[in-house]
Amino acid sequence: MPTKTVSTNDRSPKVTHRDLRPSNGGPTPAAESSVASSALERRFLRRALQAIGNPPIEVELWDGESVSTQPDLVKYRVHVAGRRTLWKLFVQPDFEFADGYVEGRITTDSDLTELIQTVFAAMADRLPRPRLERFLSWATGHARSLKASRENIHHHYDLGNDFYQLWLDEQLLYTCAYFESEEMSLEAAQVAKMDYICRKLCLKPGDRVIEAGCGWGSFALHMARNYGARVTAYNISREQLAFARARATAEGLGDAVTFVEADWRQIRGECDVFVSVGMLEHVGPEHYRKLGKIIKSCLAPQGRGLIHSIGLNRPRPIDRWTEQRIFPGGQPPALSEAMAIFEPSGMSVLDVENLRLHYAKTLRHWLKRFEQSSDAVREMFDEKFVRMWRLYLAASVATFEAGGLQLFQILFAPAINNDLPRTRDHLYPLRPGPS
Amino acid sequence: MPTKTVSTNDRSPKVTHRDLRPSNGGPTPAAESSVASSALERRFLRRALQAIGNPPIEVELWDGESVSTQPDLVKYRVHVAGRRTLWKLFVQPDFEFADGYVEGRITTDSDLTELIQTVFAAMADRLPRPRLERFLSWATGHARSLKASRENIHHHYDLGNDFYQLWLDEQLLYTCAYFESEEMSLEAAQVAKMDYICRKLCLKPGDRVIEAGCGWGSFALHMARNYGARVTAYNISREQLAFARARATAEGLGDAVTFVEADWRQIRGECDVFVSVGMLEHVGPEHYRKLGKIIKSCLAPQGRGLIHSIGLNRPRPIDRWTEQRIFPGGQPPALSEAMAIFEPSGMSVLDVENLRLHYAKTLRHWLKRFEQSSDAVREMFDEKFVRMWRLYLAASVATFEAGGLQLFQILFAPAINNDLPRTRDHLYPLRPGPS
Repeated sequence: MPTKTVSTNDRSPKVTHRDLRPSNGGPTPAAESSVASSALERRFLRRALQAIGNPPIEVELWDGESVSTQPDLVKYRVHVAGRRTLWKLFVQPDFEFADGYVEGRITTDSDLTELIQTVFAAMADRLPRPRLERFLSWATGHARSLKASRENIHHHYDLGNDFYQLWLDEQLLYTCAYFESEEMSLEAAQVAKMDYICRKLCLKPGDRVIEAGCGWGSFALHMARNYGARVTAYNISREQLAFARARATAEGLGDAVTFVEADWRQIRGECDVFVSVGMLEHVGPEHYRKLGKIIKSCLAPQGRGLIHSIGLNRPRPIDRWTEQRIFPGGQPPALSEAMAIFEPSGMSVLDVENLRLHYAKTLRHWLKRFEQSSDAVREMFDEKFVRMWRLYLAASVATFEAGGLQLFQILFAPAINNDLPRTRDHLYPLRPGPS
Repeated sequence: MPTKTVSTNDRSPKVTHRDLRPSNGGPTPAAESSVASSALERRFLRRALQAIGNPPIEVELWDGESVSTQPDLVKYRVHVAGRRTLWKLFVQPDFEFADGYVEGRITTDSDLTELIQTVFAAMADRLPRPRLERFLSWATGHARSLKASRENIHHHYDLGNDFYQLWLDEQLLYTCAYFESEEMSLEAAQVAKMDYICRKLCLKPGDRVIEAGCGWGSFALHMARNYGARVTAYNISREQLAFARARATAEGLGDAVTFVEADWRQIRGECDVFVSVGMLEHVGPEHYRKLGKIIKSCLAPQGRGLIHSIGLNRPRPIDRWTEQRIFPGGQPPALSEAMAIFEPSGMSVLDVENLRLHYAKTLRHWLKRFEQSSDAVREMFDEKFVRMWRLYLAASVATFEAGGLQLFQILFAPAINNDLPRTRDHLYPLRPGPS
């Protein structure tokens, strides 16, 4: 291994949110039950801990009793506020842990990210059941039709630009950054990500670019400002679009960048470059073939394209809580699924890069900034909202670090395009030679 | 585009084999028919040329008549020796063009590679029919069981080390080279390929390597000699293995490299690195899941793996002539198919690189050397064999350049492995900084 390989956590920002113990005067979990826990309940709880691989966790019950399958190794503590919460945990553990945490019926004095990581570690190699998962996802998941997509996107991205400004980087990039070095700031790593994608796409002055899903417009503006590209950028989030248009006008880039309020299904026109950063997660595998057809129909014969998306190591539904509460309709693809975009359309995959650990690092930055702004978030929304987003960000850090989520950048071109660099040398900045 | 992008042919070796015209005293096609061609036959021939997109080709018939759909644009000429050949061409054009060419019933005074390329160009975007292809392939293709695989491999790789020594590089690497620069020699590009793979795998002294399908052993010896790895290399080609073992002994690397005569299905043991260069083409998509299981069971939790294989842009059978005459049982995967190796086994794809145009360049070198040695090949075998291999190499050049075949290097690791370089900087040699 190169010497610069470091373990994941070395220089990543540390996040240390913990619920205060009730005895410390912190938020007291709502008292659900006055009756004591039963021996049967405690036995069930022990079985449940065994079923997830005996993590070094102690579960403290509402009546002061506590259960652990490894009393000498306990590193993390979780408090359950009552009988109803406990039984819900038995029935659907992931979902109820999340909902219980959000509502304060489940609390912990341990670091939330570490707590989740320790459960993942205990469960490692216990692959879940794809068929049952698929069924539950199908039965409870959100549709991804044109109309449903608008609602899904509104749910997450129209929470208010003010909210995202509290904890994203200054340019509001809400996707995985690219840390060229371990020490890079989030701000610099987001710019590095944009430049890295532009290099992969061999972007040059005058290129006509279609961007599908443009967020607050930073990347579209970056391509126009720094590379002389002419960009048409699509989005269905109104709040984001209004913000993006105002920025384009303020920067005098109104002619070079056109922001269009439309869904990916409505993309038309011809382009030299097709790019999409963080939209594919919302498209759904059932639509990939159609997306590929649209891309192919837009792309010039000598064109290039890149899709940047969260991904999976194997096809499986996103966890139900995230799909229900955070990203309605969200579904990252496995690579085998993503190929449905390129293969039937006669496009050629040139380069796939997995940036999983860059996303873990990005999320650690976001979580740290989120905690620093949690009072402001609480003012804007409420305590539940703070706990929900904390859980979502902490669980995402843990999942990327445990290898449960991937980040794929897929570079592609029409199959007949031979006008491409032969090597990837141009992607990596010139460095001083050995002295 | 970076300025070093050049069109495919610029500095690649030129191949200029042409059949001499019969009038020039060259090989006279066997006279099949004494009767003249009919108007119906010439009309059918015209239709056939239309069906493949009106390439600028003139077909000269055995009676001196000739047919072209674009008389003013003709650039290539093909001679058909008789009625039987013509009708066989109508029934199964690709297959009979190849067999007819091999047997000298079809000849051309044009460059063979260019002739094939012009047909591909005319046919561009006429996607063939996957279902019919699949059926024909299933009905006529070779099995890939353990026993059948031995016979398949024997058919191609045991043609005699002497034969391959005539036209491969000095180290006998019969897979795509990596041209770090356009001017690199084939010899240097084959060494560059080996080093590039070792960098992708972060190979270090003491690493236990399993190599599946080791050819004449050059890469196994390279990893041991240049990186201090301990390699166990598998192959089922006896001629190759005997050669490889003799080289290991001669170099004093007998302790560091073990050559095992066994199929991939028989691979056992633990390794830090799993690598396979040019074997997957012979495994068959129906076995990928099993291959993945074997790789996963061998690979240490902090291990890395790389598969280097010819590939396709979409699942389809290899063309029938190649499968029947050249590579029995051969079937390159589309990426969606290759994912069956990694996804069900809980492995993570880290990096996919498509080196298609490097393979076209490699094949141009081989074809040039093959032509230079064609007299020696004719002595070893016969004229038919020379024509068969010329066609196979020329058609391969044309197919890679037209985007009909890909070359994928897929880097992977167990999903939980976080001990990996964060960026791909280390893959690219340090270059002098801008002065």
